[in-house]
Amino acid sequence: MKENSITIALDGTGGDNRSTNKVVGAVRFALAMNPSIHLIIYGSSELEQDLSRAGISKKNYTFRLAPQSIPQDETPRRVLTGYQRAAMRLAMLSVKEGEANAMVSSGGTGPLVTLARHILGTVDKIRPALAKKIPAGVGRFSVMLDLGANASCSSKDLYDFARLGSAYANICLGCEAPRVSILNVGVERNKGPLVVKETRDLLDADRNLYFQGYVEADHLFSGDADVIVTDGFTGNVALKAAEGVAGILAKGPGLKRFFAKMAWPDWLLPWQYNGSPLLGVNGIVVKSHASAGDEALAVAMVEAAFASQVDLANSLKSLI
Amino acid sequence: MKENSITIALDGTGGDNRSTNKVVGAVRFALAMNPSIHLIIYGSSELEQDLSRAGISKKNYTFRLAPQSIPQDETPRRVLTGYQRAAMRLAMLSVKEGEANAMVSSGGTGPLVTLARHILGTVDKIRPALAKKIPAGVGRFSVMLDLGANASCSSKDLYDFARLGSAYANICLGCEAPRVSILNVGVERNKGPLVVKETRDLLDADRNLYFQGYVEADHLFSGDADVIVTDGFTGNVALKAAEGVAGILAKGPGLKRFFAKMAWPDWLLPWQYNGSPLLGVNGIVVKSHASAGDEALAVAMVEAAFASQVDLANSLKSLI
Repeated sequence: MKENSITIALDGTGGDNRSTNKVVGAVRFALAMNPSIHLIIYGSSELEQDLSRAGISKKNYTFRLAPQSIPQDETPRRVLTGYQRAAMRLAMLSVKEGEANAMVSSGGTGPLVTLARHILGTVDKIRPALAKKIPAGVGRFSVMLDLGANASCSSKDLYDFARLGSAYANICLGCEAPRVSILNVGVERNKGPLVVKETRDLLDADRNLYFQGYVEADHLFSGDADVIVTDGFTGNVALKAAEGVAGILAKGPGLKRFFAKMAWPDWLLPWQYNGSPLLGVNGIVVKSHASAGDEALAVAMVEAAFASQVDLANSLKSLI
Repeated sequence: MKENSITIALDGTGGDNRSTNKVVGAVRFALAMNPSIHLIIYGSSELEQDLSRAGISKKNYTFRLAPQSIPQDETPRRVLTGYQRAAMRLAMLSVKEGEANAMVSSGGTGPLVTLARHILGTVDKIRPALAKKIPAGVGRFSVMLDLGANASCSSKDLYDFARLGSAYANICLGCEAPRVSILNVGVERNKGPLVVKETRDLLDADRNLYFQGYVEADHLFSGDADVIVTDGFTGNVALKAAEGVAGILAKGPGLKRFFAKMAWPDWLLPWQYNGSPLLGVNGIVVKSHASAGDEALAVAMVEAAFASQVDLANSLKSLI
């Protein structure tokens, strides 16, 4: 790692859009937003050429050839054995070896979690969870987790997510006593499936957490809770459902699209909150949305740099 | 039941807003939208007076005093034993006894499902599911289920929901071969939790259903599927998350609220699709959103009348 700079390893292969233009644009934006970032970029020779052609100073990045990309539905076994030259794997290894402070990938959640667990290892036998800062009004954020690392969760998992999320809110959002809520289909105590009620009991019993009960999905962006806990399946569905409505408005016909642009609150712009840290592993891993545009991918890199500056992985370990 | 008219039993007590004004307004709207509706209204003496004072013709409704309201988090045991004079119970009984063609309630999903299963009985040992027509473009709808009747579901339950939803789409939306999808966190075959994959296998094996794979939550309102199958927890969260975004826009400051109104597509107005039939019971039971306004509650009554006209419960029984 260079002195006075933050080194971010970037998987330059993942995501829905395989175009290298997006990566080049993202690199340019990220360096503009945070000039203390130094990048190690893993990707194809095409990406190398495009970066060079775009005139981005080589002082700001190191390029390493890693043409392999891991399909997002690859089995864990194949992810671990079959992709020795994959950009995602090599970026993860550079974090493990202390060469990079953090890594960023737009690749599949499955492969990313598998590699992170295997290469970096987990904290305290916790199942890692993807967290996200979600907007909660002007300049305010909540943390929501899990967003897709774990398709089905036990109450112990959800309880651990509450601990991870509280620590994250403390470290990254400056919440001294983060208010924790479980996502549920009602706010009454006996609503919801058994696993939610069991989690409620575990959280009720933990004096170190500020558990305040349930929150419903129509209050996700309200700031009613600092930490919103759910399983990876439900969390993923909830955020995508919200994005879907935004997408319908953004693609309306003619004038409606203009009105939608005018109506949309600045604080709710989706790309402002791209970049989901994978909490519970020994290192900083940030997942970018697969369909993120160049600004959004840049924001994920800036998030990774911020997480590095506050020493997220180690701080979190000491808090939970 | 009166000749040439459709008799709807209305629970006049349920919902977030206990004001009788809403019920009176809803009754007026419903009668205007479908003059062949005759109502049996169960509620408090205050409601009786307000209906009378509002000048609604007594030819159009029969009032029955039923002042009890069942709290939405009441236990199933207490729901069945403790509320003999509850409006919801009496409205359900009038369907059972053939006095009303259908019943409508804005009360809690838990009590409603408990009473429906107990009083009306279930079809073919299926666990009943709350379905909803959700908008899918101008003049187009999909069916989504379950939306809250079952907090956790087995693959057999989800498979049954696909059968119920297909039959409903056939009867009420005129789809001859409804395309069925399971809500999931990705479209690749091996994505998602085990229960989703097991359901996929059951649906793959059924030649009577047009199963086309998975759909993601950002495509809920796209019309990509005619029937969207999910468990009651996820379905409830997904629709509430979408409503939450709509709510933020509708409550924006000053001009933004105006722009939101102009931007919003007419076909996506939430109140246009209020009224969730409970499928899989021997009778027509329609749940109205607890926080529905008067127009929305009226729409639920009109939906119930439509379901009566197509003889939903019996048609559905013959199809599955």
